[in-house]
Amino acid sequence: MNRLRDIGEDALIDRLIRLVPRAAADAGGPGDDCAVIDSGSSVIQLLKTDALVEHIHFLPEASPRAVGWKSVARVVSDFAAMGGKPEHFLVTLALAGSVEVSWIEEVYRGIGDCLGKFGGLLAGGETSGVPEGSAAVISIAATGSAPRDHLVLRSTAKPGEAILVTGTLGGSIRGKHLDFTPRVAEAEWLVSHFKPSAMMDLSDGLAKDLPRLAAASSIGFRIDEPALPLSPGVDAKAALGDGEDFELLFTLPQDQVALLLEQWPFAEVPLTAIGTTTSPDQGMNLSGGWDHFNSLGS
Amino acid sequence: MNRLRDIGEDALIDRLIRLVPRAAADAGGPGDDCAVIDSGSSVIQLLKTDALVEHIHFLPEASPRAVGWKSVARVVSDFAAMGGKPEHFLVTLALAGSVEVSWIEEVYRGIGDCLGKFGGLLAGGETSGVPEGSAAVISIAATGSAPRDHLVLRSTAKPGEAILVTGTLGGSIRGKHLDFTPRVAEAEWLVSHFKPSAMMDLSDGLAKDLPRLAAASSIGFRIDEPALPLSPGVDAKAALGDGEDFELLFTLPQDQVALLLEQWPFAEVPLTAIGTTTSPDQGMNLSGGWDHFNSLGS
Repeated sequence: MNRLRDIGEDALIDRLIRLVPRAAADAGGPGDDCAVIDSGSSVIQLLKTDALVEHIHFLPEASPRAVGWKSVARVVSDFAAMGGKPEHFLVTLALAGSVEVSWIEEVYRGIGDCLGKFGGLLAGGETSGVPEGSAAVISIAATGSAPRDHLVLRSTAKPGEAILVTGTLGGSIRGKHLDFTPRVAEAEWLVSHFKPSAMMDLSDGLAKDLPRLAAASSIGFRIDEPALPLSPGVDAKAALGDGEDFELLFTLPQDQVALLLEQWPFAEVPLTAIGTTTSPDQGMNLSGGWDHFNSLGS
Repeated sequence: MNRLRDIGEDALIDRLIRLVPRAAADAGGPGDDCAVIDSGSSVIQLLKTDALVEHIHFLPEASPRAVGWKSVARVVSDFAAMGGKPEHFLVTLALAGSVEVSWIEEVYRGIGDCLGKFGGLLAGGETSGVPEGSAAVISIAATGSAPRDHLVLRSTAKPGEAILVTGTLGGSIRGKHLDFTPRVAEAEWLVSHFKPSAMMDLSDGLAKDLPRLAAASSIGFRIDEPALPLSPGVDAKAALGDGEDFELLFTLPQDQVALLLEQWPFAEVPLTAIGTTTSPDQGMNLSGGWDHFNSLGS
């Protein structure tokens, strides 16, 4: 019997989307950080949904205000990685009846903190019960927008370009995963000054996300492992595989890299060239990274 | 200690939305069947999110194809009840790793059945793990649209109007809740021919939903209980309280009712006047209806 944990998230989604009527890929099909809805105007609509599950994305003892922040910050990060900004949010809470109202209110205060900081607005949502003992689920859906000339996909990298990341990688579980600041300012500066050829945010770890960018762009890649910007106290394996870094991963023509590094205005956010894109047959493989299903064990 | 089951869904949402930056009510704040995003053009954008939870909205032994249908049909019904149509869908599945892939594929086939019938397109989504033993959650988020002159809110009924419902009420749990046809054709005909002063779909039972419409419109109501269109084998209590009818509930000036009933073109869908709107202080109370949290027991 073929079970969810045996197939993996990417292969599953690839199978599922073939079963339904879907938006054309060039008009916003599934597969990028957000869905892209291009109605032909100068502003592109972005759509995103993202869920936090208790025990998977946060522990019961985590600060509910931080959980609320994280639920929105993950979505804001996805909009930023496409050159866009958040607009309207719908919040779905699926919770057992025994959950304390004060816990839910703190989650909402965290949601409000993040909406307030990045300019999103609550437009609606719903609450639903779950059976006692079932994990709490916080599902966020949002619209965003990007000016057409700022939009960056993950499918448009070319062989022979530089691969760069913001920040440091690994060790997010020690706290950053709950209180990270989405790279909104950095992404906006990038798309205005050195528009990346492709970009995404790092949610499942470089080892899982870079192959996704490469596959979407039909290219290969080579990482310079000693160049990886490691978070304090983590090794390269953790930097590749821990996940939830929420840093920007992007590609840029090699001849722009020196000038970008020179002009990068965010003194507290490292920017590091970590490798090179290649033709599909000349790249390396990466293993590791976060899988929602396998991580749960058998 | 104040717990979720003690407060009820409507009171909870009312408390929560005060905690965050939100869209202005007249530009699409929370509270109607869908959020209304009015950018000033001739077409209004609608946003909706809706979740199905295993054991709450469907049983593990239910047909997964019907569960998929239901997940989308509920959202389509909400768009219809505002005079709108569905556009782009995001599907979030939160499932344990032991779930069979064939089950998920059947859910997606059901989603595809309903999208295909009503013209929605899948634009994206995600899958997430939940701990083994936790209930499966299927969360649907969607955009829709309504021509400005077709948009119907639930907050615009006036005292002294007729209250009408499509179809029959009660007994949905015997099957209709899984395979119902959203009243898209009926709603579209209504907004084009006898535009309701207010409308919503019946998801939690007349006893819960009519007071919501009345509260949103700052009116009261009186129901003519013997006039209620009962589904076969159910009594008035069930018709009021069972929920998941997914029929249209709407209000209309009294002087249009006779002509509407005469011209109603849907021979297989009853249309029934069930009462009258009143001033707020002259109405009756209704109790019963479906609450997601209390229904789970203590």
